[in-house]
Amino acid sequence: MTDRPIAILGGTGPEGFGLALRWVQAGETVIIGSRDGQRAQQAADKVKQLAGSNARIFGMENVAACGVSDLLVLTIPFSGHAALLKQLKSALRPGSIVIDATVPLAATVGGRASRTLGVWQGSAAQETAELVPEGVVVVAAFQNVGAEMLQGTGPVDCDVIVCSDDADAGHVVRKLASKIAGVRALDGGRLENARILEQITALLIGLNIRHKGHSGIRITGLPAAAYISQ
Amino acid sequence: MTDRPIAILGGTGPEGFGLALRWVQAGETVIIGSRDGQRAQQAADKVKQLAGSNARIFGMENVAACGVSDLLVLTIPFSGHAALLKQLKSALRPGSIVIDATVPLAATVGGRASRTLGVWQGSAAQETAELVPEGVVVVAAFQNVGAEMLQGTGPVDCDVIVCSDDADAGHVVRKLASKIAGVRALDGGRLENARILEQITALLIGLNIRHKGHSGIRITGLPAAAYISQ
Repeated sequence: MTDRPIAILGGTGPEGFGLALRWVQAGETVIIGSRDGQRAQQAADKVKQLAGSNARIFGMENVAACGVSDLLVLTIPFSGHAALLKQLKSALRPGSIVIDATVPLAATVGGRASRTLGVWQGSAAQETAELVPEGVVVVAAFQNVGAEMLQGTGPVDCDVIVCSDDADAGHVVRKLASKIAGVRALDGGRLENARILEQITALLIGLNIRHKGHSGIRITGLPAAAYISQ
Repeated sequence: MTDRPIAILGGTGPEGFGLALRWVQAGETVIIGSRDGQRAQQAADKVKQLAGSNARIFGMENVAACGVSDLLVLTIPFSGHAALLKQLKSALRPGSIVIDATVPLAATVGGRASRTLGVWQGSAAQETAELVPEGVVVVAAFQNVGAEMLQGTGPVDCDVIVCSDDADAGHVVRKLASKIAGVRALDGGRLENARILEQITALLIGLNIRHKGHSGIRITGLPAAAYISQ
């Protein structure tokens, strides 16, 4: 997988930046995508400063990033979610995996970050599945790993639950998740379960506000075999 | 709190039985409630066998249990949820706390246990809030602690997130939850967040089926002060 670059669209934001940093530290090749290619390049430079000059990190405009990667992560506010997907439609190639980390927080339309909007399809990730061209697979993951944890220095104290209707793509993403120090990746079932992952984030944000923390989740009580091995 | 008995309505089922056992072991007085007073008594006898003859555990018909306790826990299938609350309406006294652990699993109407039904009010707990008489406070909790964990012998490896619109009642329930060995109790905010707790259970059931485990959740990344102290 190391030679399959990961493009993080919306990667100049705190969540995407944190994921980029962690994957680069794990030896992955990462492309930060942004509406603005120059801002993407600046974010990539900043990752390089933090991760060292051997880091394989690049910055590109979002559509250009789709041209060089078939492993795309969406870390964008829900307000720009559908618009970006429509913009990418002709750039997305069959066989690509779109990993959606988007949470439809009510804050995106002026509401609370501890509430979600109802998405007609069931979840942001299912909306994505409706908007990508045929042959592109959608996987929901990374909603519950906060930017502060990712940008911290210690291991990430959070499990990543991965939901997809495509078993192979789910496996690829679980492997990718478990490359992040501290993360354990779990198969959360079908894409429809993304609605639960998205809502958990709203709960965690509420806990963060109430208790001044940077919360995450761990699943207990499962056998070791439930977690992916590299 | 020890001299305030806890009545567990639907306490002959595995979840309620597990909670009864844990609280009795912690020195609480517990009443198991059931539609059938005799079955309640049998379950109470079984708890006594497991917890020792000093255990303060009793069995009663549900309505009778409401007459002797103002701290009521609902551990009933969603199919019987509204009917029980209507039946209890005249028995519930103002000042009582109803702790709702009910999850509206689709299995209750023949669907999957890894999916929830949409409840118009937002969650089973919010439905409860609509059905109890004025002056009765509803608290959502215990949805995510599985019966198998509760009936096991070791400490329970799960956090209990407590949601309520009444701060005092929330505090009472967090104290009650943290009496269960291993449990850490957290303030999950307003009752409306019960919808998230209920859906997490569906996710955990899916994980249990997929990975043959008895899963629970832990919240990470919060300061120690976030958890209740006795």
